[in-house]
Amino acid sequence: AQGSVTLYGVLDTLVAVGQGSLTDRTQLTHSGNTTTRIGVRGVEDLGGGWSAGFVLEGGILTDNGAGMASNANNQAGAPSLGAAQGLTFNRRSTLSLFSPWGELRLGRDYVPSYSNMNTFDSFGNAGVGTAIMALLGVTSSTPAGIRASNSIAYHLPAGTLGGLYGNAMIAWGENAQGTPNEDDGDYQGVRLGWAQGPWNVAFATGKLKQLGNDSRPRNYGFTYNFGTVTYALGFADERLGGIKGKGIQTGVEWRVGVGQVRASYGSYKRETGLEPETRKLAVGYVHNLSKRTAVYTTFAHVSNKGGAGYALNGSTTAANQSSRGLDIGLRHAF
Amino acid sequence: AQGSVTLYGVLDTLVAVGQGSLTDRTQLTHSGNTTTRIGVRGVEDLGGGWSAGFVLEGGILTDNGAGMASNANNQAGAPSLGAAQGLTFNRRSTLSLFSPWGELRLGRDYVPSYSNMNTFDSFGNAGVGTAIMALLGVTSSTPAGIRASNSIAYHLPAGTLGGLYGNAMIAWGENAQGTPNEDDGDYQGVRLGWAQGPWNVAFATGKLKQLGNDSRPRNYGFTYNFGTVTYALGFADERLGGIKGKGIQTGVEWRVGVGQVRASYGSYKRETGLEPETRKLAVGYVHNLSKRTAVYTTFAHVSNKGGAGYALNGSTTAANQSSRGLDIGLRHAF
Amino acid sequence: AQGSVTLYGVLDTLVAVGQGSLTDRTQLTHSGNTTTRIGVRGVEDLGGGWSAGFVLEGGILTDNGAGMASNANNQAGAPSLGAAQGLTFNRRSTLSLFSPWGELRLGRDYVPSYSNMNTFDSFGNAGVGTAIMALLGVTSSTPAGIRASNSIAYHLPAGTLGGLYGNAMIAWGENAQGTPNEDDGDYQGVRLGWAQGPWNVAFATGKLKQLGNDSRPRNYGFTYNFGTVTYALGFADERLGGIKGKGIQTGVEWRVGVGQVRASYGSYKRETGLEPETRKLAVGYVHNLSKRTAVYTTFAHVSNKGGAGYALNGSTTAANQSSRGLDIGLRHAF
Repeated sequence: AQGSVTLYGVLDTLVAVGQGSLTDRTQLTHSGNTTTRIGVRGVEDLGGGWSAGFVLEGGILTDNGAGMASNANNQAGAPSLGAAQGLTFNRRSTLSLFSPWGELRLGRDYVPSYSNMNTFDSFGNAGVGTAIMALLGVTSSTPAGIRASNSIAYHLPAGTLGGLYGNAMIAWGENAQGTPNEDDGDYQGVRLGWAQGPWNVAFATGKLKQLGNDSRPRNYGFTYNFGTVTYALGFADERLGGIKGKGIQTGVEWRVGVGQVRASYGSYKRETGLEPETRKLAVGYVHNLSKRTAVYTTFAHVSNKGGAGYALNGSTTAANQSSRGLDIGLRHAF
Repeated sequence: AQGSVTLYGVLDTLVAVGQGSLTDRTQLTHSGNTTTRIGVRGVEDLGGGWSAGFVLEGGILTDNGAGMASNANNQAGAPSLGAAQGLTFNRRSTLSLFSPWGELRLGRDYVPSYSNMNTFDSFGNAGVGTAIMALLGVTSSTPAGIRASNSIAYHLPAGTLGGLYGNAMIAWGENAQGTPNEDDGDYQGVRLGWAQGPWNVAFATGKLKQLGNDSRPRNYGFTYNFGTVTYALGFADERLGGIKGKGIQTGVEWRVGVGQVRASYGSYKRETGLEPETRKLAVGYVHNLSKRTAVYTTFAHVSNKGGAGYALNGSTTAANQSSRGLDIGLRHAF
Repeated sequence: AQGSVTLYGVLDTLVAVGQGSLTDRTQLTHSGNTTTRIGVRGVEDLGGGWSAGFVLEGGILTDNGAGMASNANNQAGAPSLGAAQGLTFNRRSTLSLFSPWGELRLGRDYVPSYSNMNTFDSFGNAGVGTAIMALLGVTSSTPAGIRASNSIAYHLPAGTLGGLYGNAMIAWGENAQGTPNEDDGDYQGVRLGWAQGPWNVAFATGKLKQLGNDSRPRNYGFTYNFGTVTYALGFADERLGGIKGKGIQTGVEWRVGVGQVRASYGSYKRETGLEPETRKLAVGYVHNLSKRTAVYTTFAHVSNKGGAGYALNGSTTAANQSSRGLDIGLRHAF
């Protein structure tokens, strides 16, 4: 109203085919290349290098028009409403004060320990090519494994520290005092990186309190840009209660005219029992029809061992069997 | 953000009075003239006759501010959340690629077999005047009787085929493989029409899988424009499992200065048992205060036989008794 | 789309600390200075002094991105969805026709008997400083104590009656005829005020039907503006079934440069049993960084007697004990 506000979004709808040893599945689904969203954002210049800004951004199931739920307390237990789920600003609901010394950001946002998963995955954590260490990570599947509500974060100022970037966040579960799970949902995390010329490298770690089962994400990422080719490498070395999880992810993005070829290979192992491990190979092509619109396809194959039975695109597969998935979709940003 | 996006909507709020042989009711409700909605849409020119576009459109209960739920799998079972129902894009959530040879449309949209109900009803399927064959149709009340999620549709190009128009859709229920209801929620349908000068005629049919109770809509519509008067005629001849349903609808719209007089008569009969049948007569007037804003009133009367007991505007009526309804409302588009 | 539409909103996120005799609490929460919201509104000039307009406005939990639920029938019973609650237009969903003789307003809106609570509270009914008579009022906590759905209201024309303002509303619960609670949720209310130069004074009353427990709000408000200082005084004298409630509220707002100092004192007593009473003192400071953005802090203290045990900011306190609360936040309007 009084200031400039931007309404923006991404729609990404695809046919997703999955094949497993037990059942196959074909679906029309969303977010094969970029996660679907609709948002409103704005920035106000306050003078003297200060400004205020906000982002309200919610996910949409573009195949059926429903929204995605948020999580109020960084703990399990939100109801599942299916197609009755209304639009929430589950992806980001933040209010910021920017100064020359950095940004204070309040609300719901990515936790620092997940950001590396996005940055250093050649498929950007979307679709059947998503890094296996993000999909199966023992910490990323916790209630605050990706985003946290009730958070206060400090972000280093952009572009003034010779390539250094980073942020620290605390978030609260807001449980009642004097109960056994009083601290559940409390999160602290930090991320620090350096991006200069062709180099980008970052480290992140955190801790989410869950009664008797604390989550301790930790990961490292690296990319090097060779011009039309970007090489990526990432590691996760994390714990959920007594279980250790270790992941590795490597990939390339290659610009070819208006297109982009992508390939990645990754593995994730849980160091418990038979040490279940899943490996994934993904290759894909994105054909840009404009800056805003693209058609794309991705093929992925996973193999399981140690009792793992992960399957792609809604198919099911028996323990130690493999699975294949294919995405063909259309993505449009506005 | 990067392109031109349009935020649009319709608010339509009315007092609706219903009288039946058992109970009467007076309500403030929504959508007496045009179904309420809020939406965002955009189109991007890709060159060479190609473009990309999207529509996200959700219904609003303007009497209380709640949204309307969508349906994720074209099958029964979505929860009812009342005034806690948040906004979803239940009316339309589509991403399109347009070419000189037609449009590919993905997501949630009207099924082809329902479109004739909208086009050939003089009251546009809104309010107490809505065609009885849309309200009572054995196929239109199925989970994908009006719209389907998970759909892929092809639409003939607009304006290049000498008046020919049409679309074909497939949609998936996306159930797990190997279960008895594996195919439930799968839909296929097609619509073909011709509009030239004063003529508009169309045929549509479809099939929705429901275990042991498949739905097979089929309908025909016709309008002829005499200048200030448009005459409409429609038929439905459809099946739900072993039950046949037959409907007829006829009506006129007459432009009178800034106003519009509308009248329609229709009947719907289920060919089962005593062959319950309901007949409806509706007359109404819309007074346009501008292109965007109108006040309107509609009166309707239904009579029931063969054990039918349909009643208008929330009233209740005994079997074979009649019911009356009156709408008085305000409609505003933005 | 066809007309000018405004997308607007307020984000207000804060750290709220509460201390009670039993438990304390610290939270990141929303609406410490102004209630968070996102809305769309528009007005269309129809000529001759007439116009049409609408407002769709929904609340947001900015700490987690969820929406707030509405209430469909002005009665108890809406589900609580937590962070799965999607955006609804719970704050206001109205369609209006304006004429030289006043405004006809249809939909969901504030009830007249609550408006004085907003106008004559120096803290504007937001955050830990909110008037105790609004928080504990026996009528304001009823399902239509703040807003009503299914309402038809008439508002006096603005600015043409020498300072006189006011509105009258009827709203329906829309229950089925012939049931014992047939009239539950029906509301009638009226507000009349006069604002001229430094003076503003208003009276409001209403009645909400609830089986055997009708709610009868009644309140009075007064402000006088001394230039940089505005003095406010309000009374509530209300009934819920057989229980009488009496409240008083007084406060000041003082503009100091770009800042605003606020202080208020209030008391609310229920005339039943031991006559539980809670008294509240609040002081605060708002520092405006621009017209749209402010940082603020508020401190409040409550004392209880007669068995009351009201506590601030999510803390808990024993009967007849006191509680303290502190808000520190950031507010941004767009």
